[in-house]
Amino acid sequence: MLALKAHEMGVPVAIYSEKREDPAAQVTSLWHQGSAKDEKALKEFIASCSVVTFESEFMDAALLEKIAAATKVEIYPRPREMALIQDRLTQKELLKKFRLPTAPFIAVSTEYEARRAWHALGKKVVFKKRRFGYDGYGTFVVKNEKDLEAFLPQVEKDAHGFIAEAFVPFKREVAVMVARGRDGSTLHLPFVETYQENSRCLWVKGPLRATPTFKRLGRALEKLLEKADYVGIMGVELFDTGRELVINELAPRVHNSGHYSLDALSMDQFTLHIRAVLGLELRQPIVLRPGFAMMNLLGTTDEAPKWQLSGDVKLHWYGKNENRPGRKMGHINALATSPEKALSLVKKRRADFRV
Amino acid sequence: MLALKAHEMGVPVAIYSEKREDPAAQVTSLWHQGSAKDEKALKEFIASCSVVTFESEFMDAALLEKIAAATKVEIYPRPREMALIQDRLTQKELLKKFRLPTAPFIAVSTEYEARRAWHALGKKVVFKKRRFGYDGYGTFVVKNEKDLEAFLPQVEKDAHGFIAEAFVPFKREVAVMVARGRDGSTLHLPFVETYQENSRCLWVKGPLRATPTFKRLGRALEKLLEKADYVGIMGVELFDTGRELVINELAPRVHNSGHYSLDALSMDQFTLHIRAVLGLELRQPIVLRPGFAMMNLLGTTDEAPKWQLSGDVKLHWYGKNENRPGRKMGHINALATSPEKALSLVKKRRADFRV
Repeated sequence: MLALKAHEMGVPVAIYSEKREDPAAQVTSLWHQGSAKDEKALKEFIASCSVVTFESEFMDAALLEKIAAATKVEIYPRPREMALIQDRLTQKELLKKFRLPTAPFIAVSTEYEARRAWHALGKKVVFKKRRFGYDGYGTFVVKNEKDLEAFLPQVEKDAHGFIAEAFVPFKREVAVMVARGRDGSTLHLPFVETYQENSRCLWVKGPLRATPTFKRLGRALEKLLEKADYVGIMGVELFDTGRELVINELAPRVHNSGHYSLDALSMDQFTLHIRAVLGLELRQPIVLRPGFAMMNLLGTTDEAPKWQLSGDVKLHWYGKNENRPGRKMGHINALATSPEKALSLVKKRRADFRV
Repeated sequence: MLALKAHEMGVPVAIYSEKREDPAAQVTSLWHQGSAKDEKALKEFIASCSVVTFESEFMDAALLEKIAAATKVEIYPRPREMALIQDRLTQKELLKKFRLPTAPFIAVSTEYEARRAWHALGKKVVFKKRRFGYDGYGTFVVKNEKDLEAFLPQVEKDAHGFIAEAFVPFKREVAVMVARGRDGSTLHLPFVETYQENSRCLWVKGPLRATPTFKRLGRALEKLLEKADYVGIMGVELFDTGRELVINELAPRVHNSGHYSLDALSMDQFTLHIRAVLGLELRQPIVLRPGFAMMNLLGTTDEAPKWQLSGDVKLHWYGKNENRPGRKMGHINALATSPEKALSLVKKRRADFRV
């Protein structure tokens, strides 16, 4: 989707990926085969670009920093900021440093530390891998002794270790996209409600009414990007406890919870990210309708998906080569006179797909 | 733009074009080099596709019909309907047959016929090449004896001949996109005002208020597509004389006057065309704001364009390899509370470009 939006602006897009079948590899004539770990190939590729960005944060930031220094090519988000956020421990420390609301946490790398953290944080604890977690993968909710005993053998298997976080009893989950350009301009998109099923986002609806609490937090997040000298867009997931908002996670990239923006805003998250990394001015997009919703189309089988889609929702299908249970294969967006009506539209249309 | 919107839906896109630098060739991994006249290469390409469509109507319809019959591949619009419309004479006859309002016309292929037509049509006459005219190329406005004498030597040079049309004294020019799907569903987008400079579209603004006249004509155009068994989207250019609407030209494809739809409607003309040729249901898109405008970015030099674009308009840049005076290099879209406000936004932003 980043590549498509860059093409729309006439920006030539070169893609570096492992396989010819990768979705991004299909939408450009400038595809370079290579592994993210292959220093020589990666360096050669980066040297051929004017600006480099990512659709994943699972990159070797030290390697990228070395290549950036050697090639003098601009890389956004900068490898150092990406490193801070891709490690859940330094990410939490960053939030704490800038006094953003987040659950208490303790770094954990041994069974002993895990047990202590569980007691210290009130015996309802979420353990998360510091690196490479996503969609619930690498996350363990531990609410009793039995859960704890089941979890403990994992701790020392992971070279990067875990963080333990106090469990937040939330009423709903909320998300927001925040962006900062190379010129220093910042903005945040509307807050939205997100709904997870089996730790995977199923749907998003919005916009949530811009209450003083949301506005304050949106501005604080923009300030965070400024202070961290972050360039690009960032996804922020939050818990709404009914009394307060607590930041769950940051993602230093375009984000699933922002896919609604492709049809619901006058400028989408992908275009905003590209503008940010190219140094073009960012302006607050308009919310085009009183309500919007996004429904993920998640695989349920290994067979090829089938669909017959009617025209009252907009389909975004990623061209992934293989279907797999739980895999994000595409999404549908709808607009309506309220978030609830938009949600009921995408819920109805989901039946058009046998994914 | 067709390819980008097909990608968005996850439809694999293979492109057949002459040069690697062609805009569409840059946005896919499946590019096939070939000339539109090379029967063998074209047939091989078409045989490899499930559905074929075009972004230009300047194709050899007889050749396509032959290939369609041999390969059994679906081609939309169908070659026969494309042939009817690509020839201005049969196009006019089609309009006349279905009683759609259009200026009186006479086919002309000799100097003698041209002179007679000029007298018969009231001495204010537009001569147009029957084939391969665009953006004023191939069009000659003849308002007096001197114009006529200057034009006459052209007539017999063109193998396909000309049509002579009575000149329509218009107050403004208007356009509308009409679409019909393989399932028979039809729709038309809002009527818009278009402004031409040196016979090239400079800007579009809309939506025009859906008066009974517009509604009636929109329905008549849908009926035309139905009766002609046309599949795909069609651009329709009209003259508004202040008293009536007169159809100027049909274009059997996505159209410059519909580029506003990329940002102003809940579904754009490219997606609608792709849905039409794939057999997916067409539904009336929503106009997202009370006003929209589109400004073409036309080349003024052979040098590389320069721009610094602010964020209150949306850029669509075509990635054409060479700049040329008058060439359509891209466009900008704006949304606002009225068509006039949107137009003044794109007029202001045009200065950001030195094309």
